[in-house]
Amino acid sequence: MRLSAFAVKQITNYQFPNMSNIQASIITIGDELLIGQVIDTNSAWIAQRLNELGIDVCHRLAVGDTKDAIWDALDDELKRSSLLFITGGLGPTADDITKPLLCEYFEGKLVVNETVLEHVKAMFAKRSRPFLDRNMKQAEVPDNCTILFNRMGTAPGMWFEKDGKVIVSMPGVPFEMMAIMEDEVLHRLQQRFISDAIIHRSIITAGEGESFLAERIKDLEEALPSYIKLAYLPTYGAVRLRLTGRGADKIRLGKELQLRQEEIANRLENIVVSLEDLPMEHILGKCLVEKHATLGLAESCTGGLIAHYMTQAMGSTTYFNGSIVCYQEAVKEKTLGVKHQTLEDHGAVSEQTVIEMVQGAKELLGSDYTLAITGLLSGTPDAHNTEVGTVWIAVAHNERTLTKKFQLHYDRLRNKEMAVQMALLMLWRFINGKM
Amino acid sequence: MRLSAFAVKQITNYQFPNMSNIQASIITIGDELLIGQVIDTNSAWIAQRLNELGIDVCHRLAVGDTKDAIWDALDDELKRSSLLFITGGLGPTADDITKPLLCEYFEGKLVVNETVLEHVKAMFAKRSRPFLDRNMKQAEVPDNCTILFNRMGTAPGMWFEKDGKVIVSMPGVPFEMMAIMEDEVLHRLQQRFISDAIIHRSIITAGEGESFLAERIKDLEEALPSYIKLAYLPTYGAVRLRLTGRGADKIRLGKELQLRQEEIANRLENIVVSLEDLPMEHILGKCLVEKHATLGLAESCTGGLIAHYMTQAMGSTTYFNGSIVCYQEAVKEKTLGVKHQTLEDHGAVSEQTVIEMVQGAKELLGSDYTLAITGLLSGTPDAHNTEVGTVWIAVAHNERTLTKKFQLHYDRLRNKEMAVQMALLMLWRFINGKM
Repeated sequence: MRLSAFAVKQITNYQFPNMSNIQASIITIGDELLIGQVIDTNSAWIAQRLNELGIDVCHRLAVGDTKDAIWDALDDELKRSSLLFITGGLGPTADDITKPLLCEYFEGKLVVNETVLEHVKAMFAKRSRPFLDRNMKQAEVPDNCTILFNRMGTAPGMWFEKDGKVIVSMPGVPFEMMAIMEDEVLHRLQQRFISDAIIHRSIITAGEGESFLAERIKDLEEALPSYIKLAYLPTYGAVRLRLTGRGADKIRLGKELQLRQEEIANRLENIVVSLEDLPMEHILGKCLVEKHATLGLAESCTGGLIAHYMTQAMGSTTYFNGSIVCYQEAVKEKTLGVKHQTLEDHGAVSEQTVIEMVQGAKELLGSDYTLAITGLLSGTPDAHNTEVGTVWIAVAHNERTLTKKFQLHYDRLRNKEMAVQMALLMLWRFINGKM
Repeated sequence: MRLSAFAVKQITNYQFPNMSNIQASIITIGDELLIGQVIDTNSAWIAQRLNELGIDVCHRLAVGDTKDAIWDALDDELKRSSLLFITGGLGPTADDITKPLLCEYFEGKLVVNETVLEHVKAMFAKRSRPFLDRNMKQAEVPDNCTILFNRMGTAPGMWFEKDGKVIVSMPGVPFEMMAIMEDEVLHRLQQRFISDAIIHRSIITAGEGESFLAERIKDLEEALPSYIKLAYLPTYGAVRLRLTGRGADKIRLGKELQLRQEEIANRLENIVVSLEDLPMEHILGKCLVEKHATLGLAESCTGGLIAHYMTQAMGSTTYFNGSIVCYQEAVKEKTLGVKHQTLEDHGAVSEQTVIEMVQGAKELLGSDYTLAITGLLSGTPDAHNTEVGTVWIAVAHNERTLTKKFQLHYDRLRNKEMAVQMALLMLWRFINGKM
């Protein structure tokens, strides 16, 4: 999980104003959203999936657990959109009023569904919990909807149709919602609304700002046909380019997108990191797998966060050895053999220290590639007058060791996240002979 | 940054339906929200702050960067609420149309504000960027609003009043929005809307489910006066209780809340972790500071995530030594001295291994308290038939070592997060003699 990126603007040409007139709204239900107890990650996830199908989200709305609020939201959004996604309000507790409300709104009645009942009973049995009478309610569904199977939980999703519009209701627990979308909703949407094929191609770049980058490929972007759009999606230190094409002939479209992708990638050759849309730690992981190489770390200021990222993917144990999180100076000395004199003379945040860290970690962990990082992320300058925001990174492989200094300008938590991204990117460049 | 909790329901009596009739709406502006590129964390943060003042958010809305969408949203929400918060759409790029739109909506005109101009120029100078003519636009503000100073960025916030309603517009970058809210907005809201004092008191508990807990303090909750409300806010492994009182006499209210807090805390004594509303890693940090004790870790399955949490607070270097992230078996052997035979006989996820890990880390890091963790978070059972979701944790202090086995049931990423919370809680209990 990364820190949610802040709103970086300048998204160009993302939507397909002339290619799609399917407008969708997302309604999230729950008092916990209005009091700020829960951050709504569902809407962004749903919006991304819809976007991949070429469906535009025009409105996102959060309302409380009251009948009036939900009813009004349905009225309003059905005027606006032909596709409505509702999450939340389906659990077994008393304040979950969405299911009976939808039933009433679409003029159906609640009936026990035998398939759902069996599934709910099985879920209870699996978790060794007794199935009580009041749990029976969970197997009740409106008789005027299509049931969307929820393999991750007890509350099923529901698919209603009315006046040519589609309303999909799902539980608010993210992994349940995601399972229902993937198992039951996306292919139905494609069949129901999308006649054309939608294809995406990505180019991950790093090292150049968005506007400079846009300048370099201006002619290629302008030459794109109307059915291929280019989006710039900036994150920490990297810019993701996404080509999205839409057309009736899937094979032809695929070929053309690949051509455009290659054209742009060739132009940007020196800053292209990947042609696959993956986070940096996965790109690095794949790169280590290809080279049959292992990685070891020595982390001071990032406090284990690089290791956390590197172990997010299943199978990371094949290429990730471990990390020595040497937060205190004494630990740097004891575990990595950093010399006391070095720390005395140059401070913990210095080129000399980071070199001894990387060498110590290389020896201790025996990895093919080793990265060390030390920095001062917040507070006041240290005894060696190190400026706040200073970060030193060293990378090592065989006899080669390279160091680099970075200067960060944000608060502690953002500096930490930035430092991690700088480290991953530097490592990727080092491994690929690009520095 | 923790994983966003999923929507746990059963929030009881949170709002003050009879005590407040101030309704607020939050409008977030930006195509990046509708395509799902950015997760909206601003709304939750704003809602929490408003909630602390006793102001209810009744509607949250995300709209795109188009004049019609924003204009309609203003019309709709002003009918509904007496207080409107708008974030986003204030940056220097072409698609940021909010400022001129608000100016037009409230019938003012854009004028260069000298204070803002000076600030913008200073910000550019500090970042060594040239101040261009088009940057001048950033210093233009409507002449019919109060300017809200933005110490973190160039775009100021704006406070409009119309027909007794207040409309606050702020940039979408979270740390800029937060700075403006804290510096400029909250105290103005208090003066303008809140005559009563609002006081909160928290009790963090762990080890008992919400419904059992509610049962234990049922009589105390029922005996609360109408001006004191109790909310249950569950997170991984813990339940946060929050008492919120509202009244004219701040001192008397404070005393009464303290009394009620003590009463509940006494009843729940065995499961109370803290009377301060802090995340578990901060509670642990404070506890280590009080005991002048240090902490060292050996992490396998959590891959450095516990260390990451423990280093989130400034000053953590006084109590946190470091972590040996020994992801691979060979690293467990080499850095911590886990015996090859132990790994062969019992597997990496076993009580024997976690004991050797904690002992090795204790010796290597020399900390007062040491915690080790090893588990199988995803995939298939290992060669020793360890079930997926099995986690072993060991804690050690002087001659004492305790171990505990946990069984987790979710996916890899959620299991990792859960394992961290279990570890922090077990450590807190161990340090406080509660296990």
